[in-house]
Amino acid sequence: MSGFVQPLEHLIECFRRLPGIGYKTAVRLAFCVVDMPAADAEAFATAIINAKQKIKMCSICQNISESDVCDICLSSSRDKSTICVTENSKDVAAIEKIRDYNGLYHVLGGLISPINGITPDKLKIKELLSRLSDDTVKEVIIATNPNIEGEATAMYISKLIKPLGVKVSRLAYGIPAGGELEYADEVTLSRAIEGRREL
Amino acid sequence: MSGFVQPLEHLIECFRRLPGIGYKTAVRLAFCVVDMPAADAEAFATAIINAKQKIKMCSICQNISESDVCDICLSSSRDKSTICVTENSKDVAAIEKIRDYNGLYHVLGGLISPINGITPDKLKIKELLSRLSDDTVKEVIIATNPNIEGEATAMYISKLIKPLGVKVSRLAYGIPAGGELEYADEVTLSRAIEGRREL
Repeated sequence: MSGFVQPLEHLIECFRRLPGIGYKTAVRLAFCVVDMPAADAEAFATAIINAKQKIKMCSICQNISESDVCDICLSSSRDKSTICVTENSKDVAAIEKIRDYNGLYHVLGGLISPINGITPDKLKIKELLSRLSDDTVKEVIIATNPNIEGEATAMYISKLIKPLGVKVSRLAYGIPAGGELEYADEVTLSRAIEGRREL
Repeated sequence: MSGFVQPLEHLIECFRRLPGIGYKTAVRLAFCVVDMPAADAEAFATAIINAKQKIKMCSICQNISESDVCDICLSSSRDKSTICVTENSKDVAAIEKIRDYNGLYHVLGGLISPINGITPDKLKIKELLSRLSDDTVKEVIIATNPNIEGEATAMYISKLIKPLGVKVSRLAYGIPAGGELEYADEVTLSRAIEGRREL
């Protein structure tokens, strides 16, 4: 009980359910909605409904898409011999942003994490393997996060793919650009030395 | 451009318009909406529409209300001789929470701030004065924030009310409970000394 009228309480509750939104922030956001022009509030509500209804998963790469097959999978200008495997759609967006990569993607929808009940069969790994059945794909780049779950998932997938004669690679580890050696952790530093390049 | 599909971009934009929500947070929240069950997303959209449509202003105290006159103004158990003046409805909720105050409220809808174009006529000051026309109200407690705008507003209102023979008071200044003298700023400290009480 906080002394607000019911419709406001409901909205505060809805905002609170979002990740990283505490009670005070939820109150601030709810008041912002109450104070915004009616048209903006309606647009916001419509955007929520639309995002939920119109966004599907691409039946090929499992990335979010408005159509059955996403624009990247449909594009004739993308290199169909390379598939970059990511944990989620946000990571696809991050890689697309740098405009360096021109291959296809495959979104796993998570990382293997037995503690959290995420076993390999919960991920879109079967769908990835079925994409490798003809000889189009020459390389799979595993771009999962460099943490325990990301590593485990990368190892698991690479063991399944290698027997198919497809090259499997992993994003390079190292000191992040603009970072300082002094503050790099030991694992990062040892991997940066391990992966050193001749100049 | 961030490589997301249109419906998602729209939702991210909507979240970004909320106060204190940056791009990365907006992306996180939008993905959370996409991942939530359809029923929850619909409930969220409905809560936004409802909050906007069902919440009005109480015609007496200008606090948010579901009806023309709010529950506090209608209540027979509240002390109608005292009005507590606040900047907004959030402050009313904060005071209601402590359950110590049993009088009525008056929400100004802002604080005087000429720099931001908020002149006294933009606030619900006339409405406050009209509530003092009969002899019911004996005291007006001005509970605006202890900053420049809050002070200026309090001074402005008290000058209008005093000639009407109504007592005007202001919330006490001082060291916040649990605070430390060492870290109190000079103004707070000097006011705490000024407002000292005999024990």
